[in-house]
Amino acid sequence: MDNFNFYSPTEFVFGKDRESECGEYVKKYGGSKVLIHYGGGSAERSGLLGRVRESLNKNGISFVELGGVKPNPRDTLVYKGIDLCRSEGVDFILAVGGGSSIDSAKAIAAGVPYDGDFWDFYSGKSIEKALPIGVVLTIAAAGSEGSGDSVITKEDGMLKRGAGSDVLRSKFSILNPALTQTLPAYQTACGATDIMAHVFERYFTNTTEVEITDRLCEAVLITMVKETPRVIADPDNYDARANIMWAGMVAHNGLVGVGRSQDWNSHGIEHELSALYDCAHGAGLAVIMPSWMEFVYKHNVMRFCQMATRVFGCQMNFENPESTALEGIRRFRSFLHSIGMPINFAELGAKEEDIPALVEKFGIGRRRTGGFVALSADDITEIYKIAAKASL
Amino acid sequence: MDNFNFYSPTEFVFGKDRESECGEYVKKYGGSKVLIHYGGGSAERSGLLGRVRESLNKNGISFVELGGVKPNPRDTLVYKGIDLCRSEGVDFILAVGGGSSIDSAKAIAAGVPYDGDFWDFYSGKSIEKALPIGVVLTIAAAGSEGSGDSVITKEDGMLKRGAGSDVLRSKFSILNPALTQTLPAYQTACGATDIMAHVFERYFTNTTEVEITDRLCEAVLITMVKETPRVIADPDNYDARANIMWAGMVAHNGLVGVGRSQDWNSHGIEHELSALYDCAHGAGLAVIMPSWMEFVYKHNVMRFCQMATRVFGCQMNFENPESTALEGIRRFRSFLHSIGMPINFAELGAKEEDIPALVEKFGIGRRRTGGFVALSADDITEIYKIAAKASL
Repeated sequence: MDNFNFYSPTEFVFGKDRESECGEYVKKYGGSKVLIHYGGGSAERSGLLGRVRESLNKNGISFVELGGVKPNPRDTLVYKGIDLCRSEGVDFILAVGGGSSIDSAKAIAAGVPYDGDFWDFYSGKSIEKALPIGVVLTIAAAGSEGSGDSVITKEDGMLKRGAGSDVLRSKFSILNPALTQTLPAYQTACGATDIMAHVFERYFTNTTEVEITDRLCEAVLITMVKETPRVIADPDNYDARANIMWAGMVAHNGLVGVGRSQDWNSHGIEHELSALYDCAHGAGLAVIMPSWMEFVYKHNVMRFCQMATRVFGCQMNFENPESTALEGIRRFRSFLHSIGMPINFAELGAKEEDIPALVEKFGIGRRRTGGFVALSADDITEIYKIAAKASL
Repeated sequence: MDNFNFYSPTEFVFGKDRESECGEYVKKYGGSKVLIHYGGGSAERSGLLGRVRESLNKNGISFVELGGVKPNPRDTLVYKGIDLCRSEGVDFILAVGGGSSIDSAKAIAAGVPYDGDFWDFYSGKSIEKALPIGVVLTIAAAGSEGSGDSVITKEDGMLKRGAGSDVLRSKFSILNPALTQTLPAYQTACGATDIMAHVFERYFTNTTEVEITDRLCEAVLITMVKETPRVIADPDNYDARANIMWAGMVAHNGLVGVGRSQDWNSHGIEHELSALYDCAHGAGLAVIMPSWMEFVYKHNVMRFCQMATRVFGCQMNFENPESTALEGIRRFRSFLHSIGMPINFAELGAKEEDIPALVEKFGIGRRRTGGFVALSADDITEIYKIAAKASL
């Protein structure tokens, strides 16, 4: 196990109806003038925004609002949010939504006290200061409610890049699984795929002697394999939603990846897909991640056997471990297909002829990834090609 | 899953040589005058206290010291610590040691800003305010480095009672597994038993639909079953020590027990043993916990089958689930014996004729426990009797 720091100071407020307490938590964490930052009209129509406003009003907290966050949230709205916070004297940002709203809120939070262009942070500059943020989560997926990370897309050139800092961790995150019950099956499955991918990025490591984090990774993965088909079959299953929502936080607040090298190439390779086609990140991951696995599994066949047997219930073939490793990958892809995810370019709406452009953009200003297997441009081309033609 | 809050704001600083950074972390969290609180002379002899002082000096932080914390830490030293902090204007307490030093530091931290007798907090009064504390951990066991809990023994009558509050959570906890390499095998095994018991107290629940926390519990337990025999066989095995040390934190910072009823009767029943005989808490748990399991397993045979198969690798007997449940308990006790733990009164140094007195004291001013199975005085008598005569 490598040396590490682990710091997850967010207060998680979990369960039915907890969003009606958001005003109390804003107050507890020192907010007096709030920006409510959210996405589309569904938060309004469902009455969620109404309950949030009511709770803020009840606690004597004034607020302004900025909606319109899109999936793959854009820099353009971040600039608007920074201006609004400055002109209105906002001292606390409350994200209401999923990963996109939270990531956009984090970018605004970092941008407000910074004199330069906030995009500097998404080009590698470290973030030292940010407004405090809070979260009312509406989809289990990105894990941004428990992480210090944020991913923003620069509209000019559709460059999708990430930034991270402990100062971006939310003060509190309210997780009410019932809020996710209205999500369409497709979005639910995209979220589940993202959660599993967050774990796999950490699971495939070259660090040895990491039993505790391996087992914690597997705990989350096994939970997702069990619970996801239940919510796809029955969207109103609160208990399955609850397990997934908490698993989504655990998958990405850092806990399951401490003290070990991590990979994260699948995320980078996917980001180019969602940036180019504006597809859902989870759907892109469903196409990329098993393809990445097929490309790299020979690097450590036994680790893939471990995944196959512990997560996907394969019998170990001791005479031919490679067949077990491949069977695990096959079961992962088949699982993704069973929950309604695309598994190749055609199903995603991506085009094989775009591969050279995707590979080229992958190389622009990206931070180093590939803690499990370092990849060349040719390797990435190969992975896109496997993904283009993948089948069950 | 039940509604819950989860809040673990401690910054964990994990790995080799990290104790030499303690001055930086005291500074980061606002300490300027520190009480170093520790146990016996081993921290001095090993050079650990010297490294702590050096790091504080390097960061311009002044300090006073109070050693002498005993296992099952006493109220008498807590009073002394409170007086010292007040007279010296201490604003930060740094515990150097294991659960006893940390628990004693927490009691002092709560007592300093409180006008009344700190024992009020251990009699049920809630703690609203405390001095900030930091930790340099030297034994993986109590999990106090990541929890808001503290257990103190009132010397007058040897009454062992607990208190808890989020304000008692340490600002930072430094966990260097190498510091645990000098521990005797017996203490190492006591710690491992305590860690497993912390998980089992949460694992045995009446709350259904808790897949994610079940799996996280099992992740910690499986890790302990694998890693503990390795450190007993080879005390210098850093990697196994590291896995155990981190598992010990995860076992008790709250994560594996959120959203579910918990039991905690085994801890209460054991506390009377360590209060009366001043034995190690872990050793007492090794005697009590499997005996408690034998007494309660019929309450939910399938949950014990789950433990047996997932944690101890039993084959499920589908024709006779009860035999699987019992086999799991048998393997747990056998595991404890294999790592050198006592499994009955004689091996612990306890006496069967004291059972009535133990049962009587269990009833004095204790908070309600038994979220899995509520126990009467007769039930507790029965469990002590099973424990008295237990064998492999």
